Amino acid sequence: MINTLYLPELREMLAAEDQSGLAEFCRTLHPARIAEFMEGLSPQEAWQVIQTGDRATCAEIFGFLPEEIQIKILETGDRQALSQLIADLPADDRVDLLNRVDTTIAEDVLSLVPSDERRDIRRLQAYPEGTAGAVMTTEMAKLPESLTVGTALEELGRQAKDLETIYYIYIVDAEDHLRGVVSARQLVTRLGRPETPLADIMERNLVTVEATDDQELVAGQVADYDFLAIPVVDQQQRLVGIITYDDVIDVLREEAEEDAYRAAAVEPLEDGYLQTSLLVLAWKRGFWLFTLFLAALLTAFALKSYEQIIDQVPWLVFFIPLIMSSGGNSGGQSATLIIRALANKDVRLSDTRRVLARELKMGLLLGSTLSLVGYVVGFLLLDGPQPLELLTIPITLLIVVLFGTLCGAGLPLLFRRLGVDEALMSTPFVTVLIDIGGIVIYMMVAVRMIGGLLEQVRPAL
Amino acid sequence: MINTLYLPELREMLAAEDQSGLAEFCRTLHPARIAEFMEGLSPQEAWQVIQTGDRATCAEIFGFLPEEIQIKILETGDRQALSQLIADLPADDRVDLLNRVDTTIAEDVLSLVPSDERRDIRRLQAYPEGTAGAVMTTEMAKLPESLTVGTALEELGRQAKDLETIYYIYIVDAEDHLRGVVSARQLVTRLGRPETPLADIMERNLVTVEATDDQELVAGQVADYDFLAIPVVDQQQRLVGIITYDDVIDVLREEAEEDAYRAAAVEPLEDGYLQTSLLVLAWKRGFWLFTLFLAALLTAFALKSYEQIIDQVPWLVFFIPLIMSSGGNSGGQSATLIIRALANKDVRLSDTRRVLARELKMGLLLGSTLSLVGYVVGFLLLDGPQPLELLTIPITLLIVVLFGTLCGAGLPLLFRRLGVDEALMSTPFVTVLIDIGGIVIYMMVAVRMIGGLLEQVRPAL
Repeated sequence: MINTLYLPELREMLAAEDQSGLAEFCRTLHPARIAEFMEGLSPQEAWQVIQTGDRATCAEIFGFLPEEIQIKILETGDRQALSQLIADLPADDRVDLLNRVDTTIAEDVLSLVPSDERRDIRRLQAYPEGTAGAVMTTEMAKLPESLTVGTALEELGRQAKDLETIYYIYIVDAEDHLRGVVSARQLVTRLGRPETPLADIMERNLVTVEATDDQELVAGQVADYDFLAIPVVDQQQRLVGIITYDDVIDVLREEAEEDAYRAAAVEPLEDGYLQTSLLVLAWKRGFWLFTLFLAALLTAFALKSYEQIIDQVPWLVFFIPLIMSSGGNSGGQSATLIIRALANKDVRLSDTRRVLARELKMGLLLGSTLSLVGYVVGFLLLDGPQPLELLTIPITLLIVVLFGTLCGAGLPLLFRRLGVDEALMSTPFVTVLIDIGGIVIYMMVAVRMIGGLLEQVRPAL
Repeated sequence: MINTLYLPELREMLAAEDQSGLAEFCRTLHPARIAEFMEGLSPQEAWQVIQTGDRATCAEIFGFLPEEIQIKILETGDRQALSQLIADLPADDRVDLLNRVDTTIAEDVLSLVPSDERRDIRRLQAYPEGTAGAVMTTEMAKLPESLTVGTALEELGRQAKDLETIYYIYIVDAEDHLRGVVSARQLVTRLGRPETPLADIMERNLVTVEATDDQELVAGQVADYDFLAIPVVDQQQRLVGIITYDDVIDVLREEAEEDAYRAAAVEPLEDGYLQTSLLVLAWKRGFWLFTLFLAALLTAFALKSYEQIIDQVPWLVFFIPLIMSSGGNSGGQSATLIIRALANKDVRLSDTRRVLARELKMGLLLGSTLSLVGYVVGFLLLDGPQPLELLTIPITLLIVVLFGTLCGAGLPLLFRRLGVDEALMSTPFVTVLIDIGGIVIYMMVAVRMIGGLLEQVRPAL
């Protein structure tokens, strides 16, 4: 639901060109809430509203607008005003944004941006998406070692409004090599002794990341260490940027989103569901759906090859979906548990034997419970088969669930060992594999359990 | 892999009771890394090592140890030393921890903790898990409105070491009612004018949460607003705590984890995979596996009721798994897309019609592609059926995929409309529903497409 609380007033002020009223509106609330209240406006109207605020407020509110609105504003707004906006946006956000609009427009706007800001944008644009360099900002507090607590605080006060965070101050030498870090907390607790040299209080043992590191890895590190920000260095250990906690939160959300899509065999979306065009969405789903379909076709071939068995014992057919779904579900559970455990470093490759032993026990436990129910239901549903023949159902269920848990747990471990990201192995994919195995197991058990079948069908197996 | 870099030295120093060497080790690295390097030690050894550091360092390193080690230390360590540790731990972390150890031990340790800290622990313990109150810390910078920038900075310097964050300073009246917030950044930029009253610069429009709010909601808010911390108030708008970005990161990770488990029909684990006992794990998996099994049993009944059709047209059987998996996979994709879109507010209930129209088109697009391939394969695999009879396969595939996309998208929307959390509706559950529907659709199409079948089986339908 769009928040329409201020919508009538906003429209009225826009119609009356009430600049001071609009400027007042931009000032009174948190920028994120103002962005929320403007959801009902067109991109042009929203742009008109936020331009009434001062430059900093305008850039802040703009930063909280939904991305598709931001892009529309960039595509339609006045170049001069936009270049000012771009200069005021956080270094990391504007690069993301410029990468998403039409190149001609981006170049047009960029040509009007002050040259030092433009250089900064070009530098960040050079890092491929998904790396630390592409997420970092270059607006960090960077001070020389020679300062004291007092002079550092003064310098910080001067720079504060242009910085993304002032809470970590990075100490560098003349060539920007990272020497240490001082927190604003340390400075504030030493207010009484302003002559203390930074070199005396700075932390020299730093955790840093390289600009080319994977963003997911970096996010995990900031999250593990409870850092507010982490410094990004180049190969010569020169400070090139920082990644702040809010970017880390964005990365974590994005990755969780991607994992959820992958688990359902959908290629991750870049935009919202309704913003993604039908054809793009069809491709992102169709690719995996089609791959799974081709794999599932094998089940048709498998069943065809057991035609004789099914012909002779038609009741076997009734339990095909049940057996397949039991194997698939237990396998999907194991796969998810192991993929998560590997990601959280709860399980390592060296635990392979222990994991498989656990899943073996788990399969026996779960499989035998399902078997029991399966046997009773089979008994109630069918009157044809002998009690002994009916044992095909529980025996198959047990083996299939066991097969499911072992495959589900074993495949991610195998992927990891081969150096392939195990998260790429989606649950539906595991399920299809187990489906095919399930059919083969079912038919093999039937042949052994149902009298008179063995001799006749042996050639077919 | 356990990091064994420092393990031999640590063991040596422990054996030699080299207190100063161990204290040196505790001082030189980031607490998180020290915790990492001690992974190979027993809980008792780790506890011995960190006790050599000063109290603050000891508590910090302890905070980074894996939870199961923390619990073991609490269960075996000396009560007096532990009560000191508890007093030094962040207010929110220690409550979590005490809630996880044996109650007798927790009470034993608590009885030795200073009474004001104990009162604080009891108060936080009163909030149910999953609420803002249970995640918040009570260690925030809280100052009266009457201070100036200069006096506030001095006061902050005094309190800093006991606070979880000094970067937001909350301004309260005599009864702790929240009046506003000032950031450390604002103070630092006004260092040159220390006489500025806080009342002049504080932000009065605050976004707050209530202690009883759901933690997921709160985390979303902090993440949306890019806050470092959010104030938690009681029903009288009195400040009772704050939730900081690092807790938000933990909540976001936890929720992503839960979503992943739910999507695979596993009840979320509280501990790591290897730390969870086999029986607990069996229950968390078995409950859903069994529920899905009972639902899947319906497929057996459905197939049994179509016994006559299958008897007459045995090749129909070969395509049962293929048809079911196509419906299930496309339905799972739609369900995941809509559940994510609802969570991200990309899709709202008012978009129901638009979403269903999209999924209808999507189903037609995906379904007709699969149909085409299905027909060709059917043609190559079978020699019995007439080309017209074989149309049963593509027609069923199209309808089943359509049924899948519409159910997959419609069910989360229906759940949301009924006020039930749509994330509880796991993908395997959607799949089972579509499986059963798929069989019914298949058989109905077969009856209509295959000559001579209609008359004979009508009574069975």
